[in-house]
Amino acid sequence: MAFSHDPSGPQPAFGTGLLLTDLYQLNMLQAYLEAGMTETAVFEFFVRKLPPGRNFLMAAGLETVVDFLERAAFTAAELEWLRESDRFSKAFVDHLEGFRFTGELHALREGTICFPDEPLLRLTAPLPEAQLLETRIINLLHFQTVIASKAARMVLAAPGKTLVDFGLRRAHGAEAGLLAARASYLAGFSGSATTPAARLYGIPVYGTMAHSFIQAHDDEEAAFESFARARPEAVVLLLDTYDTLAAARTVIRLAPRLAQRGISVRGVRLDSGDLAEEARAVRRLLDRAGLGRIQIFASGGLDETLLARYQAEAVPIDGYGIGTSLTTASDAPALDCAYKLQAYAGQPKRKVSTGKATWPGRKQVFRHYGRDAVMAGDILTCDGDRQGGEALVSPVMRAGTRIAPLPGLEEARAHAAAELRRLPPALRSLAPAPAYPVEVSPALRRLAEEADRARREAGGA
Amino acid sequence: MAFSHDPSGPQPAFGTGLLLTDLYQLNMLQAYLEAGMTETAVFEFFVRKLPPGRNFLMAAGLETVVDFLERAAFTAAELEWLRESDRFSKAFVDHLEGFRFTGELHALREGTICFPDEPLLRLTAPLPEAQLLETRIINLLHFQTVIASKAARMVLAAPGKTLVDFGLRRAHGAEAGLLAARASYLAGFSGSATTPAARLYGIPVYGTMAHSFIQAHDDEEAAFESFARARPEAVVLLLDTYDTLAAARTVIRLAPRLAQRGISVRGVRLDSGDLAEEARAVRRLLDRAGLGRIQIFASGGLDETLLARYQAEAVPIDGYGIGTSLTTASDAPALDCAYKLQAYAGQPKRKVSTGKATWPGRKQVFRHYGRDAVMAGDILTCDGDRQGGEALVSPVMRAGTRIAPLPGLEEARAHAAAELRRLPPALRSLAPAPAYPVEVSPALRRLAEEADRARREAGGA
Repeated sequence: MAFSHDPSGPQPAFGTGLLLTDLYQLNMLQAYLEAGMTETAVFEFFVRKLPPGRNFLMAAGLETVVDFLERAAFTAAELEWLRESDRFSKAFVDHLEGFRFTGELHALREGTICFPDEPLLRLTAPLPEAQLLETRIINLLHFQTVIASKAARMVLAAPGKTLVDFGLRRAHGAEAGLLAARASYLAGFSGSATTPAARLYGIPVYGTMAHSFIQAHDDEEAAFESFARARPEAVVLLLDTYDTLAAARTVIRLAPRLAQRGISVRGVRLDSGDLAEEARAVRRLLDRAGLGRIQIFASGGLDETLLARYQAEAVPIDGYGIGTSLTTASDAPALDCAYKLQAYAGQPKRKVSTGKATWPGRKQVFRHYGRDAVMAGDILTCDGDRQGGEALVSPVMRAGTRIAPLPGLEEARAHAAAELRRLPPALRSLAPAPAYPVEVSPALRRLAEEADRARREAGGA
Repeated sequence: MAFSHDPSGPQPAFGTGLLLTDLYQLNMLQAYLEAGMTETAVFEFFVRKLPPGRNFLMAAGLETVVDFLERAAFTAAELEWLRESDRFSKAFVDHLEGFRFTGELHALREGTICFPDEPLLRLTAPLPEAQLLETRIINLLHFQTVIASKAARMVLAAPGKTLVDFGLRRAHGAEAGLLAARASYLAGFSGSATTPAARLYGIPVYGTMAHSFIQAHDDEEAAFESFARARPEAVVLLLDTYDTLAAARTVIRLAPRLAQRGISVRGVRLDSGDLAEEARAVRRLLDRAGLGRIQIFASGGLDETLLARYQAEAVPIDGYGIGTSLTTASDAPALDCAYKLQAYAGQPKRKVSTGKATWPGRKQVFRHYGRDAVMAGDILTCDGDRQGGEALVSPVMRAGTRIAPLPGLEEARAHAAAELRRLPPALRSLAPAPAYPVEVSPALRRLAEEADRARREAGGA
């Protein structure tokens, strides 16, 4: 239990300085500075379309982005490295030395359900700042939204079950493992196996034993007993190293002996084979032996489709450890998302490339609710256009610092849970549902036409 | 050009200390130490099966793993945090303080083509060490092998083309972006857009401009000119913000004016629409204007299937920027891989769970070549069993340090290129080929039977 949350620890989400960006950002920055193009730009981050088969997204990663923006700077070693190259002028690198984010940030709360074209984040800052920060903002926000959106499906598929992130080993690097622990907890997971997630984010961590522990011992019963004595407070024994039912009988033999020492077996874990069939057989054995209180955990190749099937079949599994499918979001490891210039120097801007046209200007989303507070439809409009309903995009940072403390992870998690309760029933299902209605307001349509006209008049194309 | 390789910079692949592990590793460690189970264990990392449609894997990540093993330690703050919890005994945390890797490492060279069941890595160390290090070893080796294997397909699909990693923004966190830059360069990419990849790994970095750069200017021609003046050494102009062919005509108008200032347009980039069609039309315009030397780069939603199609259709594209499909390995973002106990205290071990049985003991792979040095088949056998052919698994570390300097990234990249040349033609194709022959030797089959017998006799199941 008593692992403490220690957010003063190293934040791996801020492992490198501002050099962590695409080279073209530096190229463009130098061009902007030389041309004196430092007026205010507005960029918005949004998703263009849902991955196949998905019904919604859950916004995640805002706190990590705010931490990044508040600390964003080049390190001394990075500046030195840039100076030593002949790629950039001395004046430019001197300018980078003083680089800080000084702008405004607006965003959806973490845990908010959202849809294509809706801005998850809006950054308003001098153009060079807003441009340079693009790469890492997308990198942080995209991935956590990918994971929260995937985890939310698992949470919906297995109501009442304990879901634990087991995915660090196959996550794409260390930061991915940590951010996935955070994003899945936000979306409703009970915790993670990733130890430093407890320290960095205050997330409950879980851990049992591996097959190698059993294999290293000469026999399984000795392995179980040794583990139980060493970790008496959390005895979960892994059954499937050799023969699952034989191992269950071993547990039944062992349990009274451990009880005499005051150690109770809390659970058993299955990690291979037909998990449903094995769980039923193990449950029967345990129940017949009067060990109904021993819980069954399952892991190994799970995803939301399997969770939903086990739920529908009332398979007696109490909790799931979910690894690869969660932390790589294996069916949709990326979203078609963008961080796009929406206005510069007061003029609305829009890209009109084939298939990639965007809505210009600062935007707001108003959400309407129907009976039982179920989401009924959104209106995407210009910021400042009053539409009724709940405004979802709110101010977060001003002059480069947060306006108020952000909701803590527990509060964001409670918001995410409330959001899932407000989802229309068809969207809660794993089956593809008709698209949730997101209406583009007349004001926004007019602004798009104006942006196109202004560009044509300026001879832009 | 003159970006220097500065490997003394912060290694993001070692961003956190040894606390970056699954909690169960710590639980097992305490149990091992209490039971005095500190004899030598042998673990091997291997892939169980290829992702659907794939013909081979390319091993990658070894250098990163060796760096990790040489520095692996708990930080003072991590130890303090563990002490403050009531989860572990003081004696145990004191033990962790002195934790260092003291064992041996054997591995395939980075860039080596490999197949299911073949060990990419073998770690031989006291059991608690080998166990604790598991999570991060898999985390580093799995991801880089995922990326190198994906990148190698792109390299094979587009011979002679410049391939650049554009994927940092949608990579799963910062470390994923950096490791993907490294692994794709290893596999034959020309470079990356990720700036710090140049510093950390000495990888060539590439960068042009974004649509926002064009949009921020009042007109496209002004934007092109401003960029060319600021970055005269690498002028690649993005054509598809509004109207690709109109932009190409702008480039044609602008090029002589820039030439008078000594600035030559090196290339143009297309990022949307039908890239093949646009490239042909732009090529025609440029050629007619006598600008045959201006290269065409393409990006946006590319993967190896599209590269192969453009190659087959002789689409006049000179280079590709590949993002999401590369850095998330979107069709196969994870491998079915394992780090398994193969022997403990001199006894071969094997897991026999349904569908997850493994070959026991220390293993070696012998590769045979046919005509023109094309790979003809592998033999998986026990270490020490001589089989003829080329032995692929070699010693890398002894007593916790590297035996000799590892090949540099350039050397590993040359090895990867040689490996791709040795691939059988059917395996070089993107189409699924019959499985490459990997034969299990009689010696290894006998060892597996012995391991099963020994376990049964010990009453293990």
